[in-house]
Amino acid sequence: MRAELIAIGSELLLGQVVNSNAAYLSEELSKLGIDVFHHSTVGDNTKRIQEILKTASQRSDLIITTGGLGPTADDISHESISEFLGLEMKFDDEQKKTIERKFNGRNIPEINFKQACKPESAIVIPNPIGTAIGLIFEAEGFTIASFPGVPIEMKAMFETSLKPYLEKNLLNNGSSAVIVSRDIRMVGITESEMAQRIVDLFDTDNPSLAPYASMGECRLRITAKADDEHKARNLIQPLHLKVEQALGEYIYGYDEDTLPGVIAKKLIEGKLTISSAESCTGGLVSKMLTDIPGSSAYTSINFVTYANETKARFLEMDPELIEKHGAVSPEVAQAMSEGLAKVSGSDINLGITGIAGPDGGTEERPVGLVYLGITDNLSGEYKSHVSKLDLSARENLTRAQIRELTAKHCLNKVRKLLA
Amino acid sequence: MRAELIAIGSELLLGQVVNSNAAYLSEELSKLGIDVFHHSTVGDNTKRIQEILKTASQRSDLIITTGGLGPTADDISHESISEFLGLEMKFDDEQKKTIERKFNGRNIPEINFKQACKPESAIVIPNPIGTAIGLIFEAEGFTIASFPGVPIEMKAMFETSLKPYLEKNLLNNGSSAVIVSRDIRMVGITESEMAQRIVDLFDTDNPSLAPYASMGECRLRITAKADDEHKARNLIQPLHLKVEQALGEYIYGYDEDTLPGVIAKKLIEGKLTISSAESCTGGLVSKMLTDIPGSSAYTSINFVTYANETKARFLEMDPELIEKHGAVSPEVAQAMSEGLAKVSGSDINLGITGIAGPDGGTEERPVGLVYLGITDNLSGEYKSHVSKLDLSARENLTRAQIRELTAKHCLNKVRKLLA
Repeated sequence: MRAELIAIGSELLLGQVVNSNAAYLSEELSKLGIDVFHHSTVGDNTKRIQEILKTASQRSDLIITTGGLGPTADDISHESISEFLGLEMKFDDEQKKTIERKFNGRNIPEINFKQACKPESAIVIPNPIGTAIGLIFEAEGFTIASFPGVPIEMKAMFETSLKPYLEKNLLNNGSSAVIVSRDIRMVGITESEMAQRIVDLFDTDNPSLAPYASMGECRLRITAKADDEHKARNLIQPLHLKVEQALGEYIYGYDEDTLPGVIAKKLIEGKLTISSAESCTGGLVSKMLTDIPGSSAYTSINFVTYANETKARFLEMDPELIEKHGAVSPEVAQAMSEGLAKVSGSDINLGITGIAGPDGGTEERPVGLVYLGITDNLSGEYKSHVSKLDLSARENLTRAQIRELTAKHCLNKVRKLLA
Repeated sequence: MRAELIAIGSELLLGQVVNSNAAYLSEELSKLGIDVFHHSTVGDNTKRIQEILKTASQRSDLIITTGGLGPTADDISHESISEFLGLEMKFDDEQKKTIERKFNGRNIPEINFKQACKPESAIVIPNPIGTAIGLIFEAEGFTIASFPGVPIEMKAMFETSLKPYLEKNLLNNGSSAVIVSRDIRMVGITESEMAQRIVDLFDTDNPSLAPYASMGECRLRITAKADDEHKARNLIQPLHLKVEQALGEYIYGYDEDTLPGVIAKKLIEGKLTISSAESCTGGLVSKMLTDIPGSSAYTSINFVTYANETKARFLEMDPELIEKHGAVSPEVAQAMSEGLAKVSGSDINLGITGIAGPDGGTEERPVGLVYLGITDNLSGEYKSHVSKLDLSARENLTRAQIRELTAKHCLNKVRKLLA
C-alpha cells in the first residue's frame, strides 16, 4: 500500500512554519508497513490543491492532507477536496453541537460554524482538542484523510481515529510488510568519527544503517523490513552486534533512552546522590539531572555559582585560588567539586567552570575552554579528578551550543563513572 | 519569479528526519521577492526524482534540490538531474583537489571521489564545511540548483553562493517585490485568547496577520509585500499599532527578541541583580537567566534546593514551615524568596516550588500546581509577593512542559516587575 502526504498552508511556503507533521506521519505509516513515496506542500489555493490531489490520486492509495481546516476564509482544504471529488458540503447539526460543547457556553464566533460543514458521505475524524474536525473521503480507488495542521491535534486524531481505521479497512489483507527500527545512542564521539569506525557496515540495504547527529550526541538507526516484527528484529540483530563491537564504549542507550534517564536509573539502582556547582552552564546540568521524574531520590542541592565571590563563599573555597589560577582553571574546578562535596554530602559532586562566550575569551583561555572537577566517594573515600574540554577549535559554536556540549560532556563523565 | 523546492532522501519519507531546509529556503526566497508555490519530497529513486523534476520544470523558473549529494551509492541527485537534462557527468580534477585539501593528508575513501564528478556546464556551489559540492544547472527556461541536505552546509552555501547568483542573474529586472515581516512576541496569554482579542484584524491580505504559538509564548507575524522595504514597512505600521493597542500588556518584544534577553537588558540598564531558588524547575530558570552573554553582570548565585531539608538549610528557612504548610505552598514559596534575599543580597529573589509530575500530585496539590515567591527591593526596601500558577486543568502536559511553562511564568513576573 502506497500513501502520500500533502501539507496545505501558505505559511509553510513562506517558511514561517516547519512541516514537522510530515515526519510524524511518515514514521507512523512506516510502522504500519505503508510505503510513503511523496510529500508535497501547496498554499491555500484551490487550483493548486486540486492539481496535487489529481496527481496524488493517480499514484497513491492513501492521501493524507494536513492544514487548512481553520475557521477563516483562507482555510479551504475541505472545500477543495469535496469539489475535487464532486461532493457537496452541507451544514451538519451533529458537528454544530460538538462545537457548542467545546465552547462550553462562551460566545461562538459565527465563522466557527464553517467547521461544522462536510459532505454527507465523509467520515468524521473527531478532534479531542480543537474545533477543526478531520474527514475521511472514500473515493474510487483511493482514500483521502484530512487533518488540521496543529501537530498536537493532528497526532491525537491520527492515533485515535485514522490508525484504527487503516488497520481495520485498508490493512486487513495480511500481505503488508512491517518496518522495524533500532536506535543506538552514543555520546562522546562525533558523527564522522563514528561513521569512520563502521564505514564497512553502511553498505547494506535490509537492514539499512543510517547515522544521525544532534548537539553532543549521535545515533545509528538500523532499519529492517520483513513480513512480521519478529523477522525484522532477526534481521537487525547481527548488524546491531557489529555496531556494539565497534562503538560499545560510546553507547549509552537505545531507542527512547536519554542520557539523563540512563544516569538517573544507575543512581537510583546504586542509591547514590549527586550535586552540581555550575558556572558557565548556568543551571543546565542541574536542569538535565532533574529532567527525570523521581529525581528527588538522587539530587537535593545544586548551586549555580556564577561569580568568583559566590564560588568561594558557598563552596568553601580559598578565595586566593581564583586570584592565583583564574576562575577557569583545573585547580578551581577541583576546589569547586571538593567544596561542594563538603557542603552537599552527595556521593558525586560536579564543579564546572568555563567560558561560554561569545565574549570573555583570551588567547590563553579561549571561549570554549571548560574544566570539570568530579569529587566522588564511589571507591569508599572521596577522590577528585579533573577533565578538560576544549571546544575552542570548533568554529562557529554559539554560546548555547557550548553550554549544551559542556553539559553533555559532564553527563558523559558521570555515565562513565557509574559504568 | 517562481521557485519550488525538492527534498531528496528516503530518510525524509521514513520520517527519520524533519525537513527544516524547506522552511529556511522558503523564507530566504521570500525575502528576495521570489514566490514559492510548491515543496516536494521524494526518495533516492532516479525515476521519481526525474518525474518531479519534469513537473517542476513546467511550472517554476527556479528549482532547488536538497539532499542526495553524499558519497554513497544511494546519493544520486546529481546523476538524476544530469540525466534529466541530457548532460554527462565527468570527473573534475579541480574538485578532486578540493576534496584532497579538505581531507588534509588523511586517507580519502575511494567513494568520496564520486563527489568530484559533474557535468562540464554546471556551475559549482562550493561547500565551505563538507565535501559535497552543490551545482547550478542553467537549462532552457529554468534553472536547477542543488544543495546537500545537511542544514548547516546548505545554509552556508545558499548564503555565500546561490543568493548572490540569484541577485546577479535572475533578479536583475527590478520588478520584483520584497516581503517584509514583523514579529510581535507575547507571554502570559494563550494563542486563542490572543486571537480572540484581535479577531477583526485577521481579515486583511496585505499586510497579513498570522498567529503562532510555542510553549508558554505566542507571536503575531505581520507580513507585507511591496516594491521596496520602506513601502512594505509602511504597510505594516498601522496594523502593528492596532495590535499594540489590543495586546500591549502581554508584548515583551519584537522579531529576534527573547524573554531572557529583554529581562537581561532591563537588569543591566537598572544595575540590578537577580537570584533564584528553584525546586520543581530544577535549574531551568537559572539556565534561562544565564542564556544571555554578560549575565554575570546581574546574577551571581542561584540555588536548586530540590529537597525539603536543603530548602531549610540553604535558604535560612524555618524547617517547621514545610511540615506545617507542605513544600508546595505560598508560605514556603515566600520563605524561599525571603531566605534567598538574605543569603544572596540580590535585588530580585525568586523562590519556586511546585509539582512537575508526572507523579507526586494529590487532590489538594495536583501535578501542575506552582507557587512563585518574589522578594525584591525595587521600592527601596525588601517586599514579598506570591503568585500561584495552576496548570493542573490543562490536560496532557508533560513534566518538561510544566517545567517550561513554570519558568516562562516566572520570567514574565520578573518582566512585569521591571516594567
